[in-house]
Amino acid sequence: MTSTPLFPEGPTDTREAIMAATYRALCEHGYANLTIDRIGREFAKSKSLLYHHYDGKDDLLLDFLEFLLERFEATVPLADADGAAERLERLFDHLLSPAPAADREEFMHAMIELRAQAAHDAAYRAQFTRTDDLFRDRTAAIVRQGVEQGTFRDVDPEQVASFLHATLDGAMLERVTTDDFDAAALRAELDVYVESRLLPAEA
Amino acid sequence: MTSTPLFPEGPTDTREAIMAATYRALCEHGYANLTIDRIGREFAKSKSLLYHHYDGKDDLLLDFLEFLLERFEATVPLADADGAAERLERLFDHLLSPAPAADREEFMHAMIELRAQAAHDAAYRAQFTRTDDLFRDRTAAIVRQGVEQGTFRDVDPEQVASFLHATLDGAMLERVTTDDFDAAALRAELDVYVESRLLPAEA
Repeated sequence: MTSTPLFPEGPTDTREAIMAATYRALCEHGYANLTIDRIGREFAKSKSLLYHHYDGKDDLLLDFLEFLLERFEATVPLADADGAAERLERLFDHLLSPAPAADREEFMHAMIELRAQAAHDAAYRAQFTRTDDLFRDRTAAIVRQGVEQGTFRDVDPEQVASFLHATLDGAMLERVTTDDFDAAALRAELDVYVESRLLPAEA
Repeated sequence: MTSTPLFPEGPTDTREAIMAATYRALCEHGYANLTIDRIGREFAKSKSLLYHHYDGKDDLLLDFLEFLLERFEATVPLADADGAAERLERLFDHLLSPAPAADREEFMHAMIELRAQAAHDAAYRAQFTRTDDLFRDRTAAIVRQGVEQGTFRDVDPEQVASFLHATLDGAMLERVTTDDFDAAALRAELDVYVESRLLPAEA
């Protein structure tokens, strides 16, 4: 039932230690004020390792985004939910928690700054395209499961996933960049959408 | 039926001329590389006027966001559409055009960069909160009109507006920061949502 933390306690390999240091430095300084040096200060091993492995801050951050992608499967607890509707609910719970932990809030701030890089930087754009594709494919797979098991109506899984993905991306954007974001209203309407669009009338 | 351009041809006052110069410079250079000096190069009148009116690039950009807000009503053509469903359709057409004009694409890039400032800058955050509030209120007013005129079901206009707004914000974010954004799929599912959630079953 519980999700695996992004950075589990205990022994870690060098890359994981670098990624954990990057996470902490990103939460603390944001993208604009981040430097390899500041990441190095969060890193227990020799700072020269960072310069050895990465060409600069953006090279390291792109690897960090790739790391998040690899861990995505484990950090969002879906696999142990039974039906498709329950799995969607878990996804919404995970992405729309009314009051996220402080470090998660800081982290989302930094992610929007990284997203904004993708508006004019091809490498960031390629990375976020892969991230979005994975997320959308995964959501589509849940919807497809529901259709195949007969618990959802016969909808187009890709189309529904595109819609849900845009809604959840927009929610994240609004939460991070405005003061009036109403997570409860959004969640209520998402639930209505699932009920009126996906669940059969007789359910 | 047509929208008013953001910057109509013909005589303009000083503020409008400054705003038009800011728009052009923002499209050309993006936020990070924008300077008052670069805005000045797009401005026919004396550059010293810019320094006289604004404390710096961010002060000018915040006024630019305010200007967009004031013009929003005129640039999105809704008022002359008849029913609530048609007005929602106009809004979707405006925000999800499959291939926006090149300068609009550049402009959306810059807007995401400005949005990202709101993650850590209180003045930008306050401005985008006002922008989102206006947009959401306006969408809610359309839904309320539909409910009152009996063309929509008896839904909660604010809740539906929050949902639509998040979906359209997410669409804009994905369009600007990824390569695989599918405007047609999103639009198709938005139309299904309006039909299944807002239009009465007997329609």
